Amino acid sequence: MFIELDFQSETPIYEQLKTEIIVGIASGQLTPGERLPSVRQMASDIGINLHTVNKAYTQLKEEGYLLIHRQRGVVVNPEGPEAMTKERQAQLRQILRPLIADSLCRQMTEKELTTFIQSIYDELKEDRSK
Amino acid sequence: MFIELDFQSETPIYEQLKTEIIVGIASGQLTPGERLPSVRQMASDIGINLHTVNKAYTQLKEEGYLLIHRQRGVVVNPEGPEAMTKERQAQLRQILRPLIADSLCRQMTEKELTTFIQSIYDELKEDRSK
Repeated sequence: MFIELDFQSETPIYEQLKTEIIVGIASGQLTPGERLPSVRQMASDIGINLHTVNKAYTQLKEEGYLLIHRQRGVVVNPEGPEAMTKERQAQLRQILRPLIADSLCRQMTEKELTTFIQSIYDELKEDRSK
Repeated sequence: MFIELDFQSETPIYEQLKTEIIVGIASGQLTPGERLPSVRQMASDIGINLHTVNKAYTQLKEEGYLLIHRQRGVVVNPEGPEAMTKERQAQLRQILRPLIADSLCRQMTEKELTTFIQSIYDELKEDRSK
């Protein structure tokens, strides 16, 4: 799996790493039960701090994306994270509302917005079918 | 206009205030050319620091949402912000990609996601027609 990080970005590296892994799982590039590099190996592979990898892995474990076994190492949780809840959907609405409002103000139509979202969805699905 | 802030939230207050104003403009609760309370008045109305309001107003001015006149005060820019650019769309894709990936992993279907986005859009439009 190819991990792409932007060291110039304002987004913390551990968050970027989390995103890369979640996108990897969503797109099927990472399959259920697949083994990920150990904390030490991942840190060395992508040239970042051990603690940064550890923070990302720990949070992904708490969120149900990964399992961390003492012996088998880090694997993609075959059961995956908890299904979307009402609470999480409310949070997502809070995040999306200002983004959609901003797009509206910038003259993006509903049709354009839907097509745009669709294209991101398709891109993830496309990776899955590779 | 009704400004709703969550003082328990991790999102900085100036960002919340910005969001409230952008949503207000998108939904038509704030109309082009409409006057907003002065920095001092807004700070006093909602019980927050002058500098916090100033930061929100200044950024909204830079983004093209507001005009700040020495005499006429703060008004909603009738021309609005710059139309959506390729660069901004690329940024939006960066923000939406992990959110959509996470929703996919949480078994939200494409149809559910589209309906969800649609409902946020409709909510903003509905306020507009009031």
